Amino acid sequence: MRDVAIIGVGLTKFGERWKASLRDLMAEAGLAALEDANITSKDVDMIYGSTMASGRFVGQEHIAALLADQLGLKNVPATRIENACASGGSAIRQGYIACASGMADIVVVGGVEKMTDVTTSEATTALGGAGDQEWELSQGITFPGLYALMARRHMHEYGTTEEQLAAVAVKNHENASKNEYAQFKNRITIDDVLKSKVVADPLKLLDCSPVTDGAAVAILAPMEIAKKYNDTPIKIAASAQASDSISLSERESLTRIKAAELAGREAYRQAKLTPKDIDVVEVHDCFTIAEIMAMEDLGFYERGKAAKAIADGETALNGKISVNTSGGLKGCGHPVGATGIKQIAEITWQLRGEAKGRQVSNAEVGMTHNVGGSGATAVVHILTR
Amino acid sequence: MRDVAIIGVGLTKFGERWKASLRDLMAEAGLAALEDANITSKDVDMIYGSTMASGRFVGQEHIAALLADQLGLKNVPATRIENACASGGSAIRQGYIACASGMADIVVVGGVEKMTDVTTSEATTALGGAGDQEWELSQGITFPGLYALMARRHMHEYGTTEEQLAAVAVKNHENASKNEYAQFKNRITIDDVLKSKVVADPLKLLDCSPVTDGAAVAILAPMEIAKKYNDTPIKIAASAQASDSISLSERESLTRIKAAELAGREAYRQAKLTPKDIDVVEVHDCFTIAEIMAMEDLGFYERGKAAKAIADGETALNGKISVNTSGGLKGCGHPVGATGIKQIAEITWQLRGEAKGRQVSNAEVGMTHNVGGSGATAVVHILTR
Repeated sequence: MRDVAIIGVGLTKFGERWKASLRDLMAEAGLAALEDANITSKDVDMIYGSTMASGRFVGQEHIAALLADQLGLKNVPATRIENACASGGSAIRQGYIACASGMADIVVVGGVEKMTDVTTSEATTALGGAGDQEWELSQGITFPGLYALMARRHMHEYGTTEEQLAAVAVKNHENASKNEYAQFKNRITIDDVLKSKVVADPLKLLDCSPVTDGAAVAILAPMEIAKKYNDTPIKIAASAQASDSISLSERESLTRIKAAELAGREAYRQAKLTPKDIDVVEVHDCFTIAEIMAMEDLGFYERGKAAKAIADGETALNGKISVNTSGGLKGCGHPVGATGIKQIAEITWQLRGEAKGRQVSNAEVGMTHNVGGSGATAVVHILTR
Repeated sequence: MRDVAIIGVGLTKFGERWKASLRDLMAEAGLAALEDANITSKDVDMIYGSTMASGRFVGQEHIAALLADQLGLKNVPATRIENACASGGSAIRQGYIACASGMADIVVVGGVEKMTDVTTSEATTALGGAGDQEWELSQGITFPGLYALMARRHMHEYGTTEEQLAAVAVKNHENASKNEYAQFKNRITIDDVLKSKVVADPLKLLDCSPVTDGAAVAILAPMEIAKKYNDTPIKIAASAQASDSISLSERESLTRIKAAELAGREAYRQAKLTPKDIDVVEVHDCFTIAEIMAMEDLGFYERGKAAKAIADGETALNGKISVNTSGGLKGCGHPVGATGIKQIAEITWQLRGEAKGRQVSNAEVGMTHNVGGSGATAVVHILTR
């Protein structure tokens, strides 16, 4: 297997993009990435596209072929990857496998979700498809409800508080305020979070990532030719994925995402690195509790220690470890199929030193952590300069 | 890249499986395949799952994790592939890439669709997601409508007749009558087809593949270890895929599926074979016209010559070339996400000599041809004994 590099990334502005259709968003991010990679469409060998629920949001499946079309890559093999909220990370991993194996040289990986064309209730139902429809969602629980169960149990086992949950959102809005692509630019306070409407107790509106339109595209190439296109190719030092029961009720624990633990461990093994080596990480904060669990699942903190550390500022920009400098899902927005690729874009910019007002000093090693559903899929990548 | 073999396959009975849920179908086909391959769940390294529109049919996305769960493979990396009606073929191809590259040894590839829990109108709308929603489907055309345009144009250019279209369905029902897994066991006549209700002129009900519940699973392994599990591993001699514009209006021609031509040509190149070498082929007969175009796109017949040849019986069981011995999508049924993998199962059985009452004599080389939407994706595999 060959070393693989990221040679280009592109994003759309995230948010309520009522004037842009699914194909418009793909084109906007895709053309930015092609330009960033300094390639033209005839260089491309393979395409992966990711959405979670484009069928339910806008009636469109088969989005990889549409992405190929939009980028002028009509006949290039194109395949859609869907692993719920981990669709983007899984698509990057498939692109990595194709490129590392020698099956393809230049691989375009694009994710998109157009979520604001439906009502909030329809969006909640569509997102429920990430969980166990037959055994759990059809019984009436929603996705915020599943994470509320995890939060409540974490509070019970470790004494985690609602203020500590809120601190995650406060930090991520602070980071998002410095990101030109972010959906939310407003800073918020602990009090704002605590006083926001309860969605699924103990999670309030500001504990939850929003409904977002957006797209993200990354371009992969074998390291041996990457320098032809880009002076600062970013190496994919590890690509790992694991699964767990899709039903929350079948899990060993409610306070750990075992798939993330396994993927994280495998990623450290591949990269021959430890949590101490990571300078900057994008974790999957679909809800504030998810960021706390992520920091524990990935070995950055012992069980029950992350919430206090986050509240103490250890994970703020240029803290002990910089977490979700993009603003995360909470602040930057969460167009589901695009999120895992946006994480890759953010870490790429950080390692290139191009993250502008939110740059982590001397960032050399970065990580992305992308979770599907309530933890049935997790994908972890480690990137190095 | 290593040689890859199919070491096991399993199907459910196709049809209206009202007593079986999505997960039940996965388990039924999956356990049959594990048993056929003589492996246990701990041998498996990677999983690909395919559905086209499970979100819209039963509210469930994230089906690869669910497949992992159902087969007792909880923590194995699992990824859903969706390329409309070519989802199954694309999933086989991703499994092939993972296995050929050395990234994984034993790979389980499973496809499923549970289509009969919604109304016919809802199913038609969901299937429309395979085409260009924004530019074509939202204007009111349905999928049968798109293929009706192709059929009408084929009739105009080549003099193809409604009787010749009907002959495809008659042959495929004849083959299905010999297949224990098939949805339809009834033989039909040209007259039955011509007198059936018009769906989208010139296509009648019996020109159209049905709405079907079903699942199919194939298990891949590197050839070097395949013999440990199976005395007759079937080699994947070629795996090729191509795309084209998702919008029919943007295509160069209405009477050719260019993606299929390109994938076919690439498959022959990889396998160092020509159309003359193929003994048995499963083609994507979502509508009768599609089988006629497939035979021309894959080089079995010159343009405009396939319809007459089919009507003359050249593609019947043990004819000049045996086409759709399973009964094809028309006779065996078309659970969309499972179809491409069912094709692989049928060719595997044919090459092993296990196709019972529908066995092709001395079948040594087989092909599968799986098309997504109205031709935006095509996947072609060549298998050899």
